[in-house]
Amino acid sequence: MNRKLAIVLLAFSQTWGIAAAQEIRDDFVPSSLNQPGQAYPQVNSQGYARFRIEAPEAESVRVSLGLGGSGGTVLTQDEDGVWTGTTAGPLDEGFHYYRLTVDGGTFNDPGTLNFFGSRRWESGIEIPAHDRDFYALKDVPHGHVQQILFPSPSTDSVRRAFVYTPPGYEDNPGQRYPVLYLQHGWGEDETAWSNQGHANLIMDNLIAEGRTEPFLIVMTYGMTNDVQIGGLGSFDVSAFETVLVDELIPYVDANFRTLSDQPNRAMAGLSMGGMETKSITLNNLDTFSYIGLFSGGSITLDDVNATPGYRDKVKLTFVSYGSKELNGGRGGRGGNPQSDAEALKAAGINSVFYVSPDTAHEFLSWRRSLHEMAPLLFRD
Amino acid sequence: MNRKLAIVLLAFSQTWGIAAAQEIRDDFVPSSLNQPGQAYPQVNSQGYARFRIEAPEAESVRVSLGLGGSGGTVLTQDEDGVWTGTTAGPLDEGFHYYRLTVDGGTFNDPGTLNFFGSRRWESGIEIPAHDRDFYALKDVPHGHVQQILFPSPSTDSVRRAFVYTPPGYEDNPGQRYPVLYLQHGWGEDETAWSNQGHANLIMDNLIAEGRTEPFLIVMTYGMTNDVQIGGLGSFDVSAFETVLVDELIPYVDANFRTLSDQPNRAMAGLSMGGMETKSITLNNLDTFSYIGLFSGGSITLDDVNATPGYRDKVKLTFVSYGSKELNGGRGGRGGNPQSDAEALKAAGINSVFYVSPDTAHEFLSWRRSLHEMAPLLFRD
Repeated sequence: MNRKLAIVLLAFSQTWGIAAAQEIRDDFVPSSLNQPGQAYPQVNSQGYARFRIEAPEAESVRVSLGLGGSGGTVLTQDEDGVWTGTTAGPLDEGFHYYRLTVDGGTFNDPGTLNFFGSRRWESGIEIPAHDRDFYALKDVPHGHVQQILFPSPSTDSVRRAFVYTPPGYEDNPGQRYPVLYLQHGWGEDETAWSNQGHANLIMDNLIAEGRTEPFLIVMTYGMTNDVQIGGLGSFDVSAFETVLVDELIPYVDANFRTLSDQPNRAMAGLSMGGMETKSITLNNLDTFSYIGLFSGGSITLDDVNATPGYRDKVKLTFVSYGSKELNGGRGGRGGNPQSDAEALKAAGINSVFYVSPDTAHEFLSWRRSLHEMAPLLFRD
Repeated sequence: MNRKLAIVLLAFSQTWGIAAAQEIRDDFVPSSLNQPGQAYPQVNSQGYARFRIEAPEAESVRVSLGLGGSGGTVLTQDEDGVWTGTTAGPLDEGFHYYRLTVDGGTFNDPGTLNFFGSRRWESGIEIPAHDRDFYALKDVPHGHVQQILFPSPSTDSVRRAFVYTPPGYEDNPGQRYPVLYLQHGWGEDETAWSNQGHANLIMDNLIAEGRTEPFLIVMTYGMTNDVQIGGLGSFDVSAFETVLVDELIPYVDANFRTLSDQPNRAMAGLSMGGMETKSITLNNLDTFSYIGLFSGGSITLDDVNATPGYRDKVKLTFVSYGSKELNGGRGGRGGNPQSDAEALKAAGINSVFYVSPDTAHEFLSWRRSLHEMAPLLFRD
């Protein structure tokens, strides 16, 4: 290393190090997702996360979260054998997956709850968001989230879904409800929208405020042909389309008091679930009338023009992204979803584009997206 | 060590080691509770469990399961840095909790699902039981399991419960159903009877065979005053009694189509949940008519005589244990639940005593207990 570069690096490192050390507020509290009675992990009011792992004889403990790139946050061992460490900077508000690397092995943090992501149950931590009130558990009437097991002849299996029924569903036996089919992202499953997304609490709160029509939400597993999945590029949605359209929807319409016509059925999804939503809805416009893509692609005027009936049948085209994943308006693998949305609007199509402030490809973007989209559904 | 003892030990150890090595069948398959795509842990047809943990730089990895007493199963590292090991003998059929100790730290096995027990999410493994058909997921009509959030003024909180509704509940809006309140054990929570217990599948299968009346099952958290809990000896059930009797039951009766009178309400629980069941039912005989204690105490003739109205109001007294936790008939902390049950029967009380063959204080005992008790409920 030449001397000039060395000085620059040192100066940067010292400045940054001192600044960080001075700035970290000492108001750490246990993360809201901790297991009962567990004091760690902790978060502070700036969004720093602090970890504490007992593994007295370990050689190294690392947390895959923080500003250290793939290195994450490296913990250091104190004289009692306990490993502790704080992220080098604040994390984005909202939910984050993470994992530990203990002596080269991957484990979960025993202090916190697990959430299904990356095709495994991962550790989760929550950085309190300034707008967290909209998904908080409050003293309002609560809907139910129920596990259903439905027959799937096409996959020769019994499959699982969760159904949110709004408050009052049981009290109003004469009332029928519209339905939103809501999909998780790659590596997640049908538990994600309740556990990580708080979809039920978002709806309970919106309904209590009179801001949305009550409707059902149905969440099932979207990686139907998961054994064949290499990457997203080779993902074939047709197996899931069969399960959803030919098996799950008829089951839900037979077992719940739904409004089972096209104007009363919506589909939305996050990331890979957005890609599935686009593919399935455009292929089944007599089944769905509202479409939502959360951080999962875009719908262009070319898409609309290539899909007979789109202008008449689709009542809402909702596309959203986290601001940090939009690169000058670009989202996903190219394209510009914001200008796509504007082009749809200019062509007289009910198109809404939403950007979640200061979030990336993570669940706070999607909680907010659902919160923005729900009041726009089933208004016609 | 004197020479005689040394020879005896050596002979025992060699004999046992050789015998075990010869006997272990090489038909290991992934445990049914593994995370998607995970090959380990595995079980064989004799009930041996085999573990595989990647932690290349670890010094020691141990599994708290097996015949090694508190030492459990010690894994050994191969040349690739992977830790493997097999239990020293077969495990009992059914579900077992376990955990890893990696370099002195407690972690879960990343290969398998987690289950809430011992007041934390633990690893779980399933040794296929010869009678597992009764709780298998089959192609029969399935009931739903729904999460409800109910207000609890006594604890100033919104509390969670799960409600099983039988197949046909949605199709028969004119029908009302009896209710079983079903409690977990110490350190578990309201997820246990669905996740570990398969209560919903047990009911689905019994109903499909026409062997039980359809009824609802309600499962909530029973360690209401958990912060104050030292041991079971100091556990005070009164806070939970208030939540259950004054808050949850009215909520369920208001939000589900229940038969809300005493003849149509039962309570049962396992271990600590059995102790709660005894205490709460005997204190509320105008609320409950069927009582089930699974590995959780006994009801004596003295109890009956000390409880006004027991003979008239209680339609069934069901007590069960795993055979391996019964010591010459004795269960729990003394007493003889089998002779207690016989004394009740001799006194003209409908008393049933059930022993689960070859199981201990674990979930297969309780799955079987529910399977035995359910057909006896709500028959009057």
